[in-house]
Amino acid sequence: MTDSQGDGVGGVTAMDLYEKLTAQGDKVRSLKTAKADKAEVDAAIQLLLKLKVDYKGVSGQDYKAGCPPSESAVVSNNGQSGNGAEEDTVDPWNVATNSAKGVDYDKLIVRFGSSKVDQELVDRIEKVSGQKPHHFLRRGIFFSHRDMHQVLDAYEKQKAFYLYTGRGPSSQAMHVGHLIPFIFTKWLQDVFDIPLVIQLTDDEKYLWKDLTLEDCHRFAVENAKDIIACGFDVNKTFIFSDLDYMGSSPEFYRNVVKIQKHVTFNQVKGIFGFTDSDCIGKISFPAIQAAPSFSNSFPQIFKGRKDVQCLIPCAIDQDPYFRMTRDVAPRIGYPKPALLHSTFFPALQGAQTKMSASDANSSIFLTDTPKQIKNKVNKHAFSGGKDTVEEHRQHGGNPDIDVSFMYLTFFMEDDEKLEKIRQDYSSGALLTGELKKMLIETLQPIITAHQEKRKNVTDEMVKQFMTPRSLDFNF
Amino acid sequence: MTDSQGDGVGGVTAMDLYEKLTAQGDKVRSLKTAKADKAEVDAAIQLLLKLKVDYKGVSGQDYKAGCPPSESAVVSNNGQSGNGAEEDTVDPWNVATNSAKGVDYDKLIVRFGSSKVDQELVDRIEKVSGQKPHHFLRRGIFFSHRDMHQVLDAYEKQKAFYLYTGRGPSSQAMHVGHLIPFIFTKWLQDVFDIPLVIQLTDDEKYLWKDLTLEDCHRFAVENAKDIIACGFDVNKTFIFSDLDYMGSSPEFYRNVVKIQKHVTFNQVKGIFGFTDSDCIGKISFPAIQAAPSFSNSFPQIFKGRKDVQCLIPCAIDQDPYFRMTRDVAPRIGYPKPALLHSTFFPALQGAQTKMSASDANSSIFLTDTPKQIKNKVNKHAFSGGKDTVEEHRQHGGNPDIDVSFMYLTFFMEDDEKLEKIRQDYSSGALLTGELKKMLIETLQPIITAHQEKRKNVTDEMVKQFMTPRSLDFNF
Repeated sequence: MTDSQGDGVGGVTAMDLYEKLTAQGDKVRSLKTAKADKAEVDAAIQLLLKLKVDYKGVSGQDYKAGCPPSESAVVSNNGQSGNGAEEDTVDPWNVATNSAKGVDYDKLIVRFGSSKVDQELVDRIEKVSGQKPHHFLRRGIFFSHRDMHQVLDAYEKQKAFYLYTGRGPSSQAMHVGHLIPFIFTKWLQDVFDIPLVIQLTDDEKYLWKDLTLEDCHRFAVENAKDIIACGFDVNKTFIFSDLDYMGSSPEFYRNVVKIQKHVTFNQVKGIFGFTDSDCIGKISFPAIQAAPSFSNSFPQIFKGRKDVQCLIPCAIDQDPYFRMTRDVAPRIGYPKPALLHSTFFPALQGAQTKMSASDANSSIFLTDTPKQIKNKVNKHAFSGGKDTVEEHRQHGGNPDIDVSFMYLTFFMEDDEKLEKIRQDYSSGALLTGELKKMLIETLQPIITAHQEKRKNVTDEMVKQFMTPRSLDFNF
Repeated sequence: MTDSQGDGVGGVTAMDLYEKLTAQGDKVRSLKTAKADKAEVDAAIQLLLKLKVDYKGVSGQDYKAGCPPSESAVVSNNGQSGNGAEEDTVDPWNVATNSAKGVDYDKLIVRFGSSKVDQELVDRIEKVSGQKPHHFLRRGIFFSHRDMHQVLDAYEKQKAFYLYTGRGPSSQAMHVGHLIPFIFTKWLQDVFDIPLVIQLTDDEKYLWKDLTLEDCHRFAVENAKDIIACGFDVNKTFIFSDLDYMGSSPEFYRNVVKIQKHVTFNQVKGIFGFTDSDCIGKISFPAIQAAPSFSNSFPQIFKGRKDVQCLIPCAIDQDPYFRMTRDVAPRIGYPKPALLHSTFFPALQGAQTKMSASDANSSIFLTDTPKQIKNKVNKHAFSGGKDTVEEHRQHGGNPDIDVSFMYLTFFMEDDEKLEKIRQDYSSGALLTGELKKMLIETLQPIITAHQEKRKNVTDEMVKQFMTPRSLDFNF
């Protein structure tokens, strides 16, 4: 538990110290006002000074009255540290690295100030849920977290939490990478039996892209169908478009305004890299992605309760939004959301970047035919194999940079089979063509099944999922 | 009609020229692409260059493709020109002048690029409405406008318009100055028989002041009672709190997002003087004050029509919001709102600033008793009279700096009586004490009558006014 500034040494967090410091400052002032005994005043001041030293040690910041410790201060300048040229770029709009293995996720944990999903946490999730951990957890695909232990502590004491995830509907087409957070979120919902809210940020896409409001909203509804096809339970899940929900929930807007009051332009500039030339919609949008982290944004589900803990499964590039959210939360009297971060789903061309919905050849789309899947994998999937069969048989391939193998880690559930493939490919027993064939045969039935399920999602069902209503939980 | 950049010489507006320039640019490009005859290309380029010169003459700006002419460029740096020290300060948060006569409104018209409400316009309003113009018009209290002739042109052709005004509910207490826009708006509504929307910016007050959301919303409802007491017709008037309406109208939020996409931080910095330390809520708020200027923000009233012209009666300090709105309007396909600007209602202490709800002695509150009114006027109203009765009788007083006389111009309807007071005070026939007595006797029955009417405003009535619904008009 060394989650960012959230947790310090010996379980004392920066926020704990901040609160103690504020109280101690008040005490010193009232002793002075009351003209208390000099020894008593001196003792109080000594404690104040000690707390200030401790606070700086834990938070890395000087104590300033009225300014609670900031998580987003960890990563300034858009997620890049000083020696930017050598660092991976990871923010909500760009993911890029020079390494064929992909982003260095261990370094990212240090830079973002989050915590590693270690074996201890995976074991604990198994113990608390009573279920074998999802292979995304076993294989380090959900590799980083914030406050997961706190969520599990509470859950063990019968305190429920809820899940929040989302998608930016920039086009009608979703690719397999987009399914990752939803597949995992569904697993979490199933094993913990908790409510789920899914935000479709159609307003964000309108602000960032050259699209009309109508198109963005239409994409949101189309994307909702793909999400519903993942098998979510309508009685436990609320899907919403910002353009609709913002205009139909005064409570949601109230939280947006609360957040907007407690975040300055300087802060979003530091976190997201906004400039003076950005439109005011972009500048204020982060508050809209933050608001679903607080349970009273959904009074229909949580009956007005503001203290239900939120857990957000998302790709690591969304973390800047939630670092900001976690900074704001204590200042407006809400619990900080916990997070589970996933790695990126690599582009077919290699793990230097994530899949893009705008480049047809970089992705396997959920609408691709079995033939298209076969052609794309055979033609575009970057290979970690050797140039000739002879060389490959002799030296073996490199699964760590092989996109087909990476995809199998996402979609092949059988651990033993996957491990055998890794060994055979590394040894040279398995050729690139054979590996690709295995991926094709894994993906084709998954995509076909998804298409079947999506076909059965009616407009009426979408409407049900997207109607604000109470869910099958008592709060 | 020399309304800002809106209108140039010979009736050619900057926007006309901008559109011609854009079309001509396209023509030159297509001629070049088609490898047209050199003479033809040259002629097209000559015309393009000429249009650029004309454009700069009318707009004061260089032509830039994709950037329509900007009204807010007229007044940069928060409404103050370079020689700021000598200029009056007028923005939505501050009004200050060194002159006891108050702000120099003629200079303000030039600085803001609006048009004077001259005798010709007053006569025309009389002709079109068939009613004697309100004394606020006759006496130059509504002294400035944008596009009023356009509104009247359309009205004469049976094209309706609607009224939009508002109030920032920073406290429960309203003073007489707050009534000015509502009294005048009611008159406009009566003579033109048109719909009215009234925005209560409780979200703004939360963002700017040290108040809770709940307080701001409560103030909005309390203020609505004072507004309703002005005599508005529930069948023709919709009053809304932003905190409520934003969260109950997807169409309103859609317009807010549209506006937010088309205004940059640079622009609001120039118009409102925001800094990097301001919260993102303040930075994006101007879009929320802009949105009611567009009729499709109220589909329940205008049946989805986006082309109904809006007229905004407001104090001149609100103009920055609407300069911004008028800049954005053509870029999102909406008509620009027209405006009628009022002077400020001076503080009892003198016209150097406007009344403030936070200083009890600077204002006559709508809750003051007859005795409080009498005491405040006698004790605090700045006098333009001489130091002794003898001097006053000999030299006369100065009504132009006398607050009691100023207040009478707002509240005494009889022109002849007011003129006689002016003459008698100037000659010295009327003493300051007598003038104050006349003001007290004018204000007391007005305030008492208002209190009576407010007492009769029930919670049920407030709810009716504040419920989104269709009004008694066919659109």
